[in-house]
Amino acid sequence: MCMRELEERIARDGVVKAGNVLKVDAFLNHQCDVELFDHMGAEWARLFSGEAITKILTIEASGIGIACVAARHFGGVPVVFAKKAQSINLDGEQYATTIYSYTKQKEYPVIVGARFLNKGDRVLIIDDFLANGCALEGLIELCRQAGAEVAGIGIAIEKVHQGGGDRLRERGFRVESLARIAAMDDETGEIAFA
Amino acid sequence: MCMRELEERIARDGVVKAGNVLKVDAFLNHQCDVELFDHMGAEWARLFSGEAITKILTIEASGIGIACVAARHFGGVPVVFAKKAQSINLDGEQYATTIYSYTKQKEYPVIVGARFLNKGDRVLIIDDFLANGCALEGLIELCRQAGAEVAGIGIAIEKVHQGGGDRLRERGFRVESLARIAAMDDETGEIAFA
Repeated sequence: MCMRELEERIARDGVVKAGNVLKVDAFLNHQCDVELFDHMGAEWARLFSGEAITKILTIEASGIGIACVAARHFGGVPVVFAKKAQSINLDGEQYATTIYSYTKQKEYPVIVGARFLNKGDRVLIIDDFLANGCALEGLIELCRQAGAEVAGIGIAIEKVHQGGGDRLRERGFRVESLARIAAMDDETGEIAFA
Repeated sequence: MCMRELEERIARDGVVKAGNVLKVDAFLNHQCDVELFDHMGAEWARLFSGEAITKILTIEASGIGIACVAARHFGGVPVVFAKKAQSINLDGEQYATTIYSYTKQKEYPVIVGARFLNKGDRVLIIDDFLANGCALEGLIELCRQAGAEVAGIGIAIEKVHQGGGDRLRERGFRVESLARIAAMDDETGEIAFA
């Protein structure tokens, strides 16, 4: 179920760069259009109605703003953002895993305080991008460690041709991406939606 | 002008740790209470009404959720979050400076895309904490490079005893902190508000 407003915005303000990179920093992950985020939240709330979401989980940094604005459409459930590196401010019991970033070409640790993800939680995972799915695998693993159930995955932009979304769907996860990109051409700047 | 709801929440769920550390990760900067963020946004909107804010500037990661929820009370102005490290996804002209983190005991680069901060912008800077003021100095410097005006600074928690807030006020900045902490005791766990 795609969201025309988001696709139109990507077509207008997204920039395709070499290396299969789509820059959406004008409205999604550097400058943030909070009205757009609000509409995205409303759409996820419609799609996941009946899922009785108790918590939204995302990962710093780009997912946080989207998740916090969206949460208001889920009755104001708490948002938890996984942290990407050990901080001296994060102590107590933790769930931890490792995510490989193709963008940065390195592995990094991802941590969430154990108090904030619990058995019985029905978690909606939200993130800005889904490409190969590595970041989501990490967040799913944190939920597994906590005994929390992944009730759904809400994505702003899925790069369908990279296959991560379909691999997650094959494993039984419900993934709802608001814009689905089938192909991009960095020479013409063209973006084809699925 | 303090906000009783936030102070009460700090008194209830904040934890004082050795080294003058106040942990508020249960509601502010790891798990996020978005209803509280919404009330904070309403309070800043009241305090800065008449300032004709055109943009909210914050810094990853903890400021993002607060700023994005608050922005809806400022007519949905764009939120820009400064990034803490050079990313291959951030190209084009940039404003950059360096911030010293006492928490992490190191300097780190802070960058904002030049397109997103402009001459004529009236910027409200929002962040979760104000202690010595180093992070804010960096954000103010980015505004200076852009020729944008800092119309105000909205802070969730000011640690008054560390002096950063008063140094900024002496320089003429309007700093509105919603909770002001005068002293903390990590042995008794006591938090005294200013």
